[in-house]
Amino acid sequence: MGFQVRERGGGSVRFSIEGVEGLPEVIAGADLAGLIVGALAEPLEDGDILVVTSKIVSKAEGRIVHADDREQAITDETVRVVATRENPAGGAPTRIVENRLGIIGAAAGVDASNAPDGTVLLLPIDPDASARSIATGIRSLTGARVGVLVSDTLGRPWREGQTDVAIGAAGVRVFDDLRGQADASGKPLAVTMPCVADELAGAAELVKGKSAGVPVAVVRGLGHLVGDLDLPGARSIVRPADRDMFRRGADEAYEEGYRDGFDEAQAEGPLREA
Amino acid sequence: MGFQVRERGGGSVRFSIEGVEGLPEVIAGADLAGLIVGALAEPLEDGDILVVTSKIVSKAEGRIVHADDREQAITDETVRVVATRENPAGGAPTRIVENRLGIIGAAAGVDASNAPDGTVLLLPIDPDASARSIATGIRSLTGARVGVLVSDTLGRPWREGQTDVAIGAAGVRVFDDLRGQADASGKPLAVTMPCVADELAGAAELVKGKSAGVPVAVVRGLGHLVGDLDLPGARSIVRPADRDMFRRGADEAYEEGYRDGFDEAQAEGPLREA
Repeated sequence: MGFQVRERGGGSVRFSIEGVEGLPEVIAGADLAGLIVGALAEPLEDGDILVVTSKIVSKAEGRIVHADDREQAITDETVRVVATRENPAGGAPTRIVENRLGIIGAAAGVDASNAPDGTVLLLPIDPDASARSIATGIRSLTGARVGVLVSDTLGRPWREGQTDVAIGAAGVRVFDDLRGQADASGKPLAVTMPCVADELAGAAELVKGKSAGVPVAVVRGLGHLVGDLDLPGARSIVRPADRDMFRRGADEAYEEGYRDGFDEAQAEGPLREA
Repeated sequence: MGFQVRERGGGSVRFSIEGVEGLPEVIAGADLAGLIVGALAEPLEDGDILVVTSKIVSKAEGRIVHADDREQAITDETVRVVATRENPAGGAPTRIVENRLGIIGAAAGVDASNAPDGTVLLLPIDPDASARSIATGIRSLTGARVGVLVSDTLGRPWREGQTDVAIGAAGVRVFDDLRGQADASGKPLAVTMPCVADELAGAAELVKGKSAGVPVAVVRGLGHLVGDLDLPGARSIVRPADRDMFRRGADEAYEEGYRDGFDEAQAEGPLREA
Protein backbone atom coordinates (compact mmCIF):
# COMPACT_ATOMS: atom_id res chain seq x y z
CA MET A 1 0.00 0.00 0.00
CA GLY A 2 2.96 2.32 0.29
CA PHE A 3 2.10 3.51 3.80
CA GLN A 4 4.08 3.31 6.94
CA VAL A 5 2.10 1.59 9.65
CA ARG A 6 0.95 4.07 12.26
CA GLU A 7 2.59 3.37 15.56
CA ARG A 8 -0.22 3.05 18.04
CA GLY A 9 0.33 2.79 21.75
CA GLY A 10 4.09 2.63 21.42
CA GLY A 11 6.36 5.66 21.54
CA SER A 12 5.27 9.25 21.77
CA VAL A 13 3.07 10.68 19.01
CA ARG A 14 4.01 14.24 18.22
CA PHE A 15 4.01 16.54 15.25
CA SER A 16 4.82 20.16 14.54
CA ILE A 17 3.56 22.75 12.08
CA GLU A 18 5.58 25.73 10.94
CA GLY A 19 4.63 28.58 8.64
CA VAL A 20 6.85 29.15 5.61
CA GLU A 21 7.67 32.83 5.47
CA GLY A 22 9.38 34.97 2.91
CA LEU A 23 7.62 33.63 -0.19
CA PRO A 24 7.60 36.28 -2.91
CA GLU A 25 4.32 37.59 -4.33
CA VAL A 26 3.00 34.85 -6.59
CA ILE A 27 2.17 35.78 -10.18
CA ALA A 28 0.63 33.81 -13.04
CA GLY A 29 2.98 31.13 -14.29
CA ALA A 30 5.00 30.99 -11.08
CA ASP A 31 6.73 27.70 -10.23
CA LEU A 32 5.23 27.07 -6.79
CA ALA A 33 7.38 24.02 -6.04
CA GLY A 34 10.53 26.01 -6.67
CA LEU A 35 9.31 29.05 -4.70
CA ILE A 36 8.35 26.92 -1.71
CA VAL A 37 11.59 24.95 -1.64
CA GLY A 38 13.54 28.21 -1.96
CA ALA A 39 11.74 29.76 1.01
CA LEU A 40 12.13 26.86 3.44
CA ALA A 41 14.29 27.44 6.50
CA GLU A 42 15.01 23.73 6.96
CA PRO A 43 15.33 20.98 4.36
CA LEU A 44 12.30 18.77 3.80
CA GLU A 45 12.34 15.15 4.92
CA ASP A 46 10.44 12.05 3.88
CA GLY A 47 6.97 12.20 5.42
CA ASP A 48 6.69 15.98 5.63
CA ILE A 49 3.37 17.43 4.47
CA LEU A 50 3.04 20.87 2.89
CA VAL A 51 -0.27 22.70 3.21
CA VAL A 52 -0.59 25.32 0.49
CA THR A 53 -3.31 27.99 0.56
CA SER A 54 -5.42 27.80 -2.60
CA LYS A 55 -4.98 31.57 -3.10
CA ILE A 56 -1.41 31.23 -4.29
CA VAL A 57 -2.30 28.24 -6.44
CA SER A 58 -5.03 30.31 -8.09
CA LYS A 59 -2.57 33.15 -8.66
CA ALA A 60 0.07 30.85 -10.12
CA GLU A 61 -2.56 29.36 -12.42
CA GLY A 62 -3.86 32.76 -13.51
CA ARG A 63 -7.33 32.10 -12.05
CA ILE A 64 -8.10 35.79 -11.65
CA VAL A 65 -10.86 38.00 -13.08
CA HIS A 66 -11.91 41.64 -12.80
CA ALA A 67 -13.94 42.38 -9.69
CA ASP A 68 -16.70 43.83 -11.92
CA ASP A 69 -17.21 40.31 -13.21
CA ARG A 70 -17.57 38.79 -9.73
CA GLU A 71 -21.27 37.91 -9.87
CA GLN A 72 -20.87 36.46 -13.36
CA ALA A 73 -17.82 34.50 -12.22
CA ILE A 74 -19.83 33.00 -9.35
CA THR A 75 -22.56 32.03 -11.81
CA ASP A 76 -19.99 30.47 -14.15
CA GLU A 77 -18.44 28.44 -11.32
CA THR A 78 -21.83 27.29 -10.03
CA VAL A 79 -23.20 23.85 -10.83
CA ARG A 80 -26.14 24.00 -8.43
CA VAL A 81 -27.57 26.64 -6.10
CA VAL A 82 -27.92 25.09 -2.65
CA ALA A 83 -29.31 28.04 -0.70
CA THR A 84 -29.45 31.82 -0.87
CA ARG A 85 -29.87 34.45 1.78
CA GLU A 86 -30.07 38.20 1.94
CA ASN A 87 -26.71 39.79 2.54
CA PRO A 88 -26.93 41.69 5.85
CA ALA A 89 -24.38 44.15 4.47
CA GLY A 90 -26.62 44.83 1.45
CA GLY A 91 -25.80 44.18 -2.17
CA ALA A 92 -26.12 40.88 -3.96
CA PRO A 93 -27.56 38.01 -1.92
CA THR A 94 -25.14 35.43 -0.57
CA ARG A 95 -25.26 32.33 -2.73
CA ILE A 96 -24.33 28.99 -1.20
CA VAL A 97 -23.59 26.85 -4.22
CA GLU A 98 -22.05 23.62 -5.35
CA ASN A 99 -19.15 24.41 -7.63
CA ARG A 100 -17.48 22.47 -10.43
CA LEU A 101 -15.51 20.53 -7.84
CA GLY A 102 -18.59 19.42 -5.90
CA ILE A 103 -17.55 21.69 -3.04
CA ILE A 104 -20.41 23.54 -1.36
CA GLY A 105 -19.58 27.01 -0.13
CA ALA A 106 -20.39 30.69 -0.31
CA ALA A 107 -19.85 32.40 -3.67
CA ALA A 108 -18.32 29.26 -5.26
CA GLY A 109 -15.01 30.18 -3.66
CA VAL A 110 -14.77 33.40 -5.67
CA ASP A 111 -12.98 35.74 -3.28
CA ALA A 112 -11.50 39.21 -3.21
CA SER A 113 -9.39 38.65 -0.07
CA ASN A 114 -5.69 38.69 -0.84
CA ALA A 115 -6.43 39.28 -4.54
CA PRO A 116 -4.83 42.25 -6.28
CA ASP A 117 -6.95 45.43 -6.19
CA GLY A 118 -9.91 45.34 -8.54
CA THR A 119 -9.74 41.60 -9.02
CA VAL A 120 -11.16 38.42 -7.54
CA LEU A 121 -9.62 34.96 -7.44
CA LEU A 122 -11.34 31.80 -8.63
CA LEU A 123 -10.51 28.40 -7.17
CA PRO A 124 -7.96 26.32 -9.08
CA ILE A 125 -9.49 24.35 -11.98
CA ASP A 126 -8.43 21.01 -10.49
CA PRO A 127 -6.86 21.35 -7.03
CA ASP A 128 -5.93 17.65 -6.85
CA ALA A 129 -3.94 18.08 -10.06
CA SER A 130 -2.41 21.28 -8.64
CA ALA A 131 -1.37 19.40 -5.51
CA ARG A 132 0.08 16.59 -7.60
CA SER A 133 2.08 19.04 -9.70
CA ILE A 134 3.49 20.78 -6.61
CA ALA A 135 4.27 17.45 -4.90
CA THR A 136 5.98 16.10 -8.00
CA GLY A 137 8.05 19.26 -8.30
CA ILE A 138 9.08 19.28 -4.65
CA ARG A 139 9.90 15.55 -4.61
CA SER A 140 12.01 16.07 -7.70
CA LEU A 141 13.81 19.14 -6.33
CA THR A 142 14.51 17.76 -2.87
CA GLY A 143 14.38 13.97 -3.14
CA ALA A 144 12.07 14.01 -0.11
CA ARG A 145 8.88 11.95 -0.29
CA VAL A 146 6.47 14.69 0.79
CA GLY A 147 2.71 15.08 0.60
CA VAL A 148 0.86 18.23 -0.47
CA LEU A 149 -2.55 19.59 0.46
CA VAL A 150 -4.23 22.60 -1.13
CA SER A 151 -6.45 24.31 1.43
CA ASP A 152 -9.36 26.71 1.31
CA THR A 153 -11.44 28.45 3.95
CA LEU A 154 -15.06 27.28 4.20
CA GLY A 155 -18.02 28.02 6.41
CA ARG A 156 -20.17 25.13 7.51
CA PRO A 157 -23.73 24.41 8.58
CA TRP A 158 -24.63 24.45 12.27
CA ARG A 159 -21.41 25.98 13.52
CA GLU A 160 -20.24 29.59 13.39
CA GLY A 161 -16.98 30.67 11.86
CA GLN A 162 -14.89 28.99 9.22
CA THR A 163 -12.23 26.32 9.14
CA ASP A 164 -9.65 25.55 6.51
CA VAL A 165 -10.26 22.28 4.70
CA ALA A 166 -8.47 20.33 1.99
CA ILE A 167 -9.68 20.93 -1.57
CA GLY A 168 -6.65 19.29 -3.17
CA ALA A 169 -4.38 16.45 -2.06
CA ALA A 170 -1.48 14.47 -3.46
CA GLY A 171 0.64 11.88 -1.71
CA VAL A 172 -1.39 12.20 1.51
CA ARG A 173 -4.09 9.91 2.82
CA VAL A 174 -7.18 12.07 3.08
CA PHE A 175 -8.91 9.65 5.47
CA ASP A 176 -7.44 7.66 8.34
CA ASP A 177 -9.77 4.76 7.68
CA LEU A 178 -10.40 3.05 11.00
CA ARG A 179 -13.40 1.06 9.81
CA GLY A 180 -12.92 -2.54 10.80
CA GLN A 181 -10.40 -1.68 13.50
CA ALA A 182 -11.22 -2.00 17.16
CA ASP A 183 -11.36 0.58 19.91
CA ALA A 184 -9.35 0.27 23.13
CA SER A 185 -11.99 -2.07 24.58
CA GLY A 186 -12.06 -4.31 21.50
CA LYS A 187 -15.33 -3.11 19.94
CA PRO A 188 -15.27 -2.44 16.21
CA LEU A 189 -15.11 1.22 15.18
CA ALA A 190 -17.91 0.85 12.66
CA VAL A 191 -18.23 4.33 11.25
CA THR A 192 -15.05 6.07 12.25
CA MET A 193 -13.18 7.55 9.30
CA PRO A 194 -11.45 10.74 10.40
CA CYS A 195 -10.88 13.15 7.55
CA VAL A 196 -7.26 13.80 8.37
CA ALA A 197 -6.79 16.01 5.30
CA ASP A 198 -9.33 18.49 6.64
CA GLU A 199 -7.82 18.27 10.11
CA LEU A 200 -4.37 18.99 8.66
CA ALA A 201 -5.65 21.94 6.63
CA GLY A 202 -7.33 23.37 9.73
CA ALA A 203 -4.20 22.86 11.80
CA ALA A 204 -2.14 24.68 9.18
CA GLU A 205 -4.54 27.64 9.32
CA LEU A 206 -3.48 28.10 12.94
CA VAL A 207 -0.03 29.17 11.77
CA LYS A 208 -0.93 30.67 8.41
CA GLY A 209 -3.62 33.03 9.55
CA LYS A 210 -5.43 35.07 6.98
CA SER A 211 -3.50 38.30 6.86
CA ALA A 212 0.04 37.34 7.73
CA GLY A 213 1.29 36.56 4.26
CA VAL A 214 2.15 32.99 5.27
CA PRO A 215 0.46 30.90 2.56
CA VAL A 216 2.33 27.64 3.18
CA ALA A 217 2.90 25.49 6.27
CA VAL A 218 5.04 22.41 6.78
CA VAL A 219 3.77 19.55 8.95
CA ARG A 220 6.49 17.34 10.37
CA GLY A 221 5.97 14.08 12.22
CA LEU A 222 2.92 12.56 10.52
CA GLY A 223 4.77 10.55 7.89
CA HIS A 224 2.35 7.63 8.33
CA LEU A 225 -0.15 9.72 6.36
CA VAL A 226 2.19 10.21 3.39
CA GLY A 227 2.09 7.77 0.47
CA ASP A 228 2.20 7.47 -3.28
CA LEU A 229 1.10 10.30 -5.53
CA ASP A 230 -1.76 8.20 -6.91
CA LEU A 231 -3.60 8.02 -3.58
CA PRO A 232 -7.18 9.33 -3.83
CA GLY A 233 -7.31 13.12 -3.84
CA ALA A 234 -9.48 15.59 -1.96
CA ARG A 235 -12.24 15.01 -4.51
CA SER A 236 -12.96 11.83 -2.57
CA ILE A 237 -13.90 13.92 0.48
CA VAL A 238 -16.84 15.48 -1.35
CA ARG A 239 -20.08 13.64 -0.63
CA PRO A 240 -22.29 13.34 -3.74
CA ALA A 241 -25.45 15.42 -3.38
CA ASP A 242 -27.74 12.42 -3.86
CA ARG A 243 -26.32 10.85 -0.70
CA ASP A 244 -26.39 14.06 1.33
CA MET A 245 -29.21 14.76 3.76
CA PHE A 246 -28.46 18.49 3.60
CA ARG A 247 -28.09 18.87 -0.15
CA ARG A 248 -30.47 21.86 -0.20
CA GLY A 249 -31.25 24.70 2.18
CA ALA A 250 -34.21 23.95 4.47
CA ASP A 251 -36.17 26.96 3.14
CA GLU A 252 -35.55 26.02 -0.47
CA ALA A 253 -36.58 22.40 0.10
CA TYR A 254 -39.71 23.49 1.99
CA GLU A 255 -40.73 25.87 -0.79
CA GLU A 256 -40.27 23.24 -3.48
CA GLY A 257 -42.32 20.80 -1.42
CA TYR A 258 -45.01 23.42 -0.88
CA ARG A 259 -45.35 24.09 -4.61
CA ASP A 260 -45.45 20.39 -5.41
CA GLY A 261 -48.02 19.68 -2.69
CA PHE A 262 -50.17 22.62 -3.76
CA ASP A 263 -50.07 21.56 -7.42
CA GLU A 264 -50.83 17.95 -6.52
CA ALA A 265 -53.88 18.92 -4.48
CA GLN A 266 -55.18 21.10 -7.31
CA ALA A 267 -54.60 18.34 -9.86
CA GLU A 268 -56.64 15.97 -7.73
CA GLY A 269 -59.54 18.31 -8.25
CA PRO A 270 -62.11 19.58 -5.76
CA LEU A 271 -61.89 18.43 -2.18
CA ARG A 272 -64.01 15.36 -1.77
CA GLU A 273 -66.56 15.58 1.02
CA ALA A 274 -65.67 13.35 3.92
CA MET B 1 -8.52 41.73 27.10
CA GLY B 2 -6.04 39.35 28.63
CA PHE B 3 -4.66 38.13 25.29
CA GLN B 4 -1.16 38.23 24.01
CA VAL B 5 -1.06 39.98 20.68
CA ARG B 6 -0.45 37.52 17.88
CA GLU B 7 2.82 38.16 16.21
CA ARG B 8 2.04 38.51 12.53
CA GLY B 9 4.71 38.72 9.91
CA GLY B 10 7.52 38.82 12.44
CA GLY B 11 9.35 35.76 13.68
CA SER B 12 8.54 32.20 12.80
CA VAL B 13 5.10 30.83 13.67
CA ARG B 14 5.30 27.26 14.84
CA PHE B 15 3.47 24.97 17.20
CA SER B 16 3.60 21.35 18.23
CA ILE B 17 1.08 18.80 19.41
CA GLU B 18 1.91 15.79 21.51
CA GLY B 19 -0.27 12.96 22.75
CA VAL B 20 -0.35 12.38 26.51
CA GLU B 21 0.14 8.68 27.09
CA GLY B 22 -0.09 6.52 30.15
CA LEU B 23 -3.30 7.93 31.58
CA PRO B 24 -5.01 5.30 33.74
CA GLU B 25 -8.51 4.07 32.89
CA VAL B 26 -10.86 6.86 33.94
CA ILE B 27 -13.71 5.98 36.29
CA ALA B 28 -16.60 7.99 37.67
CA GLY B 29 -15.42 10.61 40.10
CA ALA B 30 -11.87 10.71 38.75
CA ASP B 31 -9.91 13.94 39.13
CA LEU B 32 -9.02 14.59 35.49
CA ALA B 33 -6.80 17.59 36.19
CA GLY B 34 -4.70 15.53 38.58
CA LEU B 35 -4.56 12.51 36.26
CA ILE B 36 -3.48 14.64 33.29
CA VAL B 37 -0.80 16.52 35.21
CA GLY B 38 0.49 13.23 36.60
CA ALA B 39 0.79 11.69 33.13
CA LEU B 40 2.64 14.56 31.44
CA ALA B 41 6.18 13.90 30.29
CA GLU B 42 7.11 17.59 30.40
CA PRO B 43 5.87 20.37 32.69
CA LEU B 44 3.16 22.64 31.32
CA GLU B 45 3.95 26.25 30.48
CA ASP B 46 1.88 29.40 30.17
CA GLY B 47 0.03 29.32 26.87
CA ASP B 48 -0.16 25.55 26.51
CA ILE B 49 -3.54 24.17 25.43
CA LEU B 50 -4.84 20.76 26.47
CA VAL B 51 -7.33 19.01 24.20
CA VAL B 52 -9.28 16.41 26.18
CA THR B 53 -11.47 13.80 24.46
CA SER B 54 -15.04 14.06 25.73
CA LYS B 55 -15.08 10.28 26.36
CA ILE B 56 -12.91 10.55 29.46
CA VAL B 57 -14.86 13.58 30.67
CA SER B 58 -18.09 11.58 30.33
CA LYS B 59 -16.52 8.69 32.23
CA ALA B 60 -15.24 10.93 35.01
CA GLU B 61 -18.68 12.50 35.29
CA GLY B 62 -20.44 9.14 35.34
CA ARG B 63 -22.34 9.86 32.11
CA ILE B 64 -22.79 6.19 31.30
CA VAL B 65 -25.89 4.06 30.76
CA HIS B 66 -26.64 0.43 29.87
CA ALA B 67 -26.41 -0.30 26.16
CA ASP B 68 -29.98 -1.66 26.27
CA ASP B 69 -31.09 1.87 27.04
CA ARG B 70 -29.25 3.38 24.05
CA GLU B 71 -32.29 4.36 21.94
CA GLN B 72 -34.02 5.82 24.99
CA ALA B 73 -30.85 7.71 25.92
CA ILE B 74 -30.71 9.23 22.43
CA THR B 75 -34.35 10.27 22.77
CA ASP B 76 -33.66 11.78 26.20
CA GLU B 77 -30.68 13.76 24.89
CA THR B 78 -32.60 15.00 21.83
CA VAL B 79 -34.11 18.47 21.69
CA ARG B 80 -35.03 18.36 17.99
CA VAL B 81 -34.84 15.74 15.23
CA VAL B 82 -33.01 17.28 12.28
CA ALA B 83 -33.02 14.34 9.86
CA THR B 84 -33.31 10.57 9.89
CA ARG B 85 -32.12 7.92 7.50
CA GLU B 86 -32.26 4.17 7.22
CA ASN B 87 -29.24 2.49 8.75
CA PRO B 88 -27.50 0.58 5.95
CA ALA B 89 -26.33 -1.92 8.57
CA GLY B 90 -29.97 -2.52 9.62
CA GLY B 91 -31.44 -1.88 13.03
CA ALA B 92 -32.72 1.45 14.30
CA PRO B 93 -32.56 4.35 11.80
CA THR B 94 -29.77 6.85 12.22
CA ARG B 95 -31.07 9.97 13.87
CA ILE B 96 -29.35 13.27 13.24
CA VAL B 97 -30.52 15.42 16.12
CA GLU B 98 -29.90 18.62 17.98
CA ASN B 99 -28.97 17.78 21.55
CA ARG B 100 -29.27 19.69 24.79
CA LEU B 101 -26.09 21.58 23.93
CA GLY B 102 -27.37 22.74 20.55
CA ILE B 103 -24.87 20.43 18.84
CA ILE B 104 -26.19 18.64 15.78
CA GLY B 105 -24.87 15.15 15.27
CA ALA B 106 -25.70 11.48 14.89
CA ALA B 107 -27.31 9.78 17.88
CA ALA B 108 -26.97 12.88 20.09
CA GLY B 109 -23.38 11.89 20.80
CA VAL B 110 -24.47 8.68 22.53
CA ASP B 111 -21.67 6.29 21.66
CA ALA B 112 -20.52 2.78 22.47
CA SER B 113 -16.92 3.26 21.24
CA ASN B 114 -14.44 3.14 24.07
CA ALA B 115 -17.25 2.61 26.57
CA PRO B 116 -17.08 -0.38 28.91
CA ASP B 117 -18.81 -3.52 27.55
CA GLY B 118 -22.57 -3.34 27.63
CA THR B 119 -22.64 0.41 28.16
CA VAL B 120 -22.82 3.60 26.13
CA LEU B 121 -21.46 7.02 27.02
CA LEU B 122 -23.48 10.23 26.96
CA LEU B 123 -21.87 13.60 26.32
CA PRO B 124 -20.94 15.63 29.40
CA ILE B 125 -23.85 17.67 30.80
CA ASP B 126 -22.03 20.98 30.29
CA PRO B 127 -18.71 20.57 28.45
CA ASP B 128 -17.79 24.25 28.89
CA ALA B 129 -18.13 23.79 32.65
CA SER B 130 -16.12 20.56 32.42
CA ALA B 131 -13.37 22.40 30.54
CA ARG B 132 -13.40 25.18 33.13
CA SER B 133 -13.13 22.71 35.97
CA ILE B 134 -10.18 20.91 34.34
CA ALA B 135 -8.45 24.20 33.46
CA THR B 136 -8.92 25.54 36.96
CA GLY B 137 -7.52 22.34 38.43
CA ILE B 138 -4.50 22.26 36.14
CA ARG B 139 -3.75 25.98 36.62
CA SER B 140 -3.93 25.44 40.37
CA LEU B 141 -1.73 22.32 40.34
CA THR B 142 0.93 23.66 37.99
CA GLY B 143 0.76 27.45 38.15
CA ALA B 144 0.71 27.44 34.35
CA ARG B 145 -1.89 29.57 32.59
CA VAL B 146 -3.22 26.88 30.26
CA GLY B 147 -6.35 26.58 28.15
CA VAL B 148 -8.54 23.48 27.87
CA LEU B 149 -10.73 22.19 25.06
CA VAL B 150 -13.10 19.23 25.31
CA SER B 151 -13.37 17.54 21.92
CA ASP B 152 -15.83 15.22 20.24
CA THR B 153 -15.94 13.49 16.87
CA LEU B 154 -18.66 14.73 14.50
CA GLY B 155 -19.73 14.04 10.96
CA ARG B 156 -20.70 16.99 8.80
CA PRO B 157 -22.89 17.76 5.81
CA TRP B 158 -21.40 17.72 2.33
CA ARG B 159 -18.10 16.11 3.26
CA GLU B 160 -17.34 12.48 4.02
CA GLY B 161 -15.66 11.34 7.20
CA GLN B 162 -15.55 12.99 10.59
CA THR B 163 -13.42 15.61 12.25
CA ASP B 164 -12.91 16.33 15.91
CA VAL B 165 -14.41 19.64 17.02
CA ALA B 166 -14.56 21.57 20.28
CA ILE B 167 -17.68 21.02 22.40
CA GLY B 168 -16.18 22.59 25.51
CA ALA B 169 -13.64 25.37 26.00
CA ALA B 170 -12.12 27.30 28.88
CA GLY B 171 -9.31 29.84 28.78
CA VAL B 172 -9.01 29.53 24.97
CA ARG B 173 -10.32 31.88 22.33
CA VAL B 174 -12.70 29.78 20.25
CA PHE B 175 -12.59 32.23 17.32
CA ASP B 176 -9.64 34.16 15.93
CA ASP B 177 -11.84 37.10 15.06
CA LEU B 178 -10.29 38.80 12.05
CA ARG B 179 -13.36 40.88 11.20
CA GLY B 180 -12.29 44.44 10.74
CA GLN B 181 -8.67 43.50 10.08
CA ALA B 182 -7.12 43.82 6.65
CA ASP B 183 -5.65 41.22 4.34
CA ALA B 184 -2.11 41.46 2.99
CA SER B 185 -3.30 43.84 0.26
CA GLY B 186 -5.15 46.12 2.69
CA LYS B 187 -8.73 45.01 1.98
CA PRO B 188 -10.94 44.37 5.00
CA LEU B 189 -11.52 40.71 5.89
CA ALA B 190 -15.27 41.14 6.20
CA VAL B 191 -16.45 37.70 7.14
CA THR B 192 -13.34 35.88 8.23
CA MET B 193 -13.66 34.38 11.69
CA PRO B 194 -11.68 31.14 11.85
CA CYS B 195 -13.00 28.74 14.44
CA VAL B 196 -9.61 28.02 15.96
CA ALA B 197 -11.13 25.82 18.68
CA ASP B 198 -12.42 23.38 16.06
CA GLU B 199 -9.12 23.55 14.19
CA LEU B 200 -7.26 22.77 17.41
CA ALA B 201 -9.56 19.87 18.24
CA GLY B 202 -9.07 18.44 14.75
CA ALA B 203 -5.31 18.87 14.97
CA ALA B 204 -5.27 17.02 18.29
CA GLU B 205 -7.18 14.11 16.73
CA LEU B 206 -4.16 13.61 14.46
CA VAL B 207 -2.14 12.46 17.46
CA LYS B 208 -4.90 11.02 19.60
CA GLY B 209 -6.45 8.70 17.04
CA LYS B 210 -9.49 6.72 17.99
CA SER B 211 -8.07 3.47 19.23
CA ALA B 212 -4.68 4.36 20.64
CA GLY B 213 -5.77 5.11 24.17
CA VAL B 214 -4.39 8.64 23.94
CA PRO B 215 -7.30 10.78 25.11
CA VAL B 216 -5.38 14.01 25.76
CA ALA B 217 -3.02 16.11 23.65
CA VAL B 218 -0.93 19.15 24.55
CA VAL B 219 -0.58 22.02 22.07
CA ARG B 220 2.50 24.16 22.60
CA GLY B 221 3.27 27.42 20.81
CA LEU B 222 -0.16 29.01 20.35
CA GLY B 223 -0.23 31.02 23.57
CA HIS B 224 -1.83 33.99 21.81
CA LEU B 225 -5.05 31.96 21.85
CA VAL B 226 -4.97 31.43 25.63
CA GLY B 227 -6.76 33.88 27.91
CA ASP B 228 -8.91 34.22 30.98
CA LEU B 229 -11.20 31.44 32.12
CA ASP B 230 -14.27 33.62 31.53
CA LEU B 231 -13.75 33.80 27.76
CA PRO B 232 -16.79 32.57 25.78
CA GLY B 233 -16.97 28.78 25.70
CA ALA B 234 -17.63 26.35 22.88
CA ARG B 235 -21.35 27.01 23.27
CA SER B 236 -20.71 30.20 21.30
CA ILE B 237 -19.67 28.10 18.28
CA VAL B 238 -23.14 26.61 17.97
CA ARG B 239 -25.27 28.53 15.46
CA PRO B 240 -28.87 28.89 16.63
CA ALA B 241 -31.25 26.87 14.42
CA ASP B 242 -33.29 29.94 13.46
CA ARG B 243 -30.24 31.45 11.80
CA ASP B 244 -29.14 28.23 10.10
CA MET B 245 -29.94 27.58 6.45
CA PHE B 246 -29.53 23.83 7.01
CA ARG B 247 -31.48 23.47 10.23
CA ARG B 248 -33.47 20.53 8.81
CA GLY B 249 -32.78 17.71 6.41
CA ALA B 250 -33.74 18.50 2.81
CA ASP B 251 -36.18 15.55 2.66
CA GLU B 252 -37.82 16.51 5.95
CA ALA B 253 -38.22 20.15 4.89
CA TYR B 254 -39.61 19.12 1.49
CA GLU B 255 -42.15 16.79 3.09
CA GLU B 256 -43.33 19.43 5.54
CA GLY B 257 -43.67 21.90 2.67
CA TYR B 258 -45.57 19.35 0.61
CA ARG B 259 -48.10 18.73 3.37
CA ASP B 260 -48.56 22.45 3.98
CA GLY B 261 -48.96 23.20 0.27
CA PHE B 262 -51.41 20.35 -0.18
CA ASP B 263 -53.48 21.45 2.80
CA GLU B 264 -53.44 25.06 1.67
CA ALA B 265 -54.68 24.18 -1.82
CA GLN B 266 -57.50 22.09 -0.37
CA ALA B 267 -58.47 24.84 2.04
CA GLU B 268 -58.75 27.26 -0.87
CA GLY B 269 -61.43 25.04 -2.26
CA PRO B 270 -62.04 23.93 -5.86
CA LEU B 271 -59.63 25.04 -8.53
CA ARG B 272 -60.93 28.20 -10.12
CA GLU B 273 -61.33 28.07 -13.88
CA ALA B 274 -58.81 30.27 -15.63
